[in-house]
Amino acid sequence: MEIAILLFDRMTTLDAVGPYEVLSRLPGATVKMVAKAVGPQRNDTGSLALVADYALDEVTAPDIVLIPGGPGQTALMDDQAILQWVRQAHQTSKWTTSVCTGSLVLGAAGLLQGLPATTHWLAYDALRALGAEPTEQRVVSAGKIITAAGVSAGIDMALTLAARECGDAIAQSIQLGIEYDPQPPFNAGAPSKAPSEIVARLRNRSRFILQGR
Amino acid sequence: MEIAILLFDRMTTLDAVGPYEVLSRLPGATVKMVAKAVGPQRNDTGSLALVADYALDEVTAPDIVLIPGGPGQTALMDDQAILQWVRQAHQTSKWTTSVCTGSLVLGAAGLLQGLPATTHWLAYDALRALGAEPTEQRVVSAGKIITAAGVSAGIDMALTLAARECGDAIAQSIQLGIEYDPQPPFNAGAPSKAPSEIVARLRNRSRFILQGR
Repeated sequence: MEIAILLFDRMTTLDAVGPYEVLSRLPGATVKMVAKAVGPQRNDTGSLALVADYALDEVTAPDIVLIPGGPGQTALMDDQAILQWVRQAHQTSKWTTSVCTGSLVLGAAGLLQGLPATTHWLAYDALRALGAEPTEQRVVSAGKIITAAGVSAGIDMALTLAARECGDAIAQSIQLGIEYDPQPPFNAGAPSKAPSEIVARLRNRSRFILQGR
Repeated sequence: MEIAILLFDRMTTLDAVGPYEVLSRLPGATVKMVAKAVGPQRNDTGSLALVADYALDEVTAPDIVLIPGGPGQTALMDDQAILQWVRQAHQTSKWTTSVCTGSLVLGAAGLLQGLPATTHWLAYDALRALGAEPTEQRVVSAGKIITAAGVSAGIDMALTLAARECGDAIAQSIQLGIEYDPQPPFNAGAPSKAPSEIVARLRNRSRFILQGR
């Protein structure tokens, strides 16, 4: 089973690596890190680069496609080579997936028209503008398209996908292998749960970021 | 605040990237990915490389040190250059931390003698053999040393550290930013919670791996 994970400059690293850690452990999985050009892709904070081993035209019919998010996704949404690759891969994929604002790339490629989908909680409006129905769930399925909420949600999405593709026992075995028994020290991981002043501050900051585009 | 994350061949990627995603968002953080030699370090499954931007001698007094784990940690435990770097960094660090079997490297460097610590649940015996007291908690503190359990536990460890270093509000803001509101589809992330036959299978497989060293 071929799994293609798209890398790009200014991506959010955990968007890609969270599900990578699950999907790369599927029986028979071959994971290919793909980018517009082979080589290091530097992340959103600039302090970490992941290497893409494959160019777009080397991976044209993966079984699973995964599009991570991050500020760099904005540039991807106007990049016809990327959008064409996403559309083509989706034609033959078994599963087309995204994490965080990666769903905006699926949307820009025209794949989410009228479909329920999710994204980072700060990007619901942008997702709606692309024709999708933003859904406040951590993992949203619409046929073979599965979208995950912000950043860390990719781990839950990948375990869900692992179970659908290979059965519950395999998914549970992977969960145990990566000891995914989360115990965050706070219950602040969603806007409905975090202190309201913290939610407001992040909303404000994201407004500045969007204006600065 | 300078944060050094050690990279090495055959590491487990999420061990490094989970806490990276939290710590890189601390106010004033400068994260440096460090390895024995600058350049790509390929992970345990072989399908993903992370780039080290700094060699060991370029980062000698970080405020926070983080040692991830993964099969490649075995080679590190006999590598005097690595062990010497870990000891030296620990002398002046504010926090010395590990994820998964990264704690075995701290142990091999002599830093865990008589201290409570944790590691991947399959590696308790190896941790004990290095003089530590294996502790079945997800995040274990002993003075300025903080060790995390397997792979994904690094996220919880880093949020704990974020709160200690910068206060609860900053940690909660980071948690909300990465939307860390975990909802795994199964409750199988610890040996006490997973189906017993799955636990047994992983124990067996790890025995083969250890024999194959």
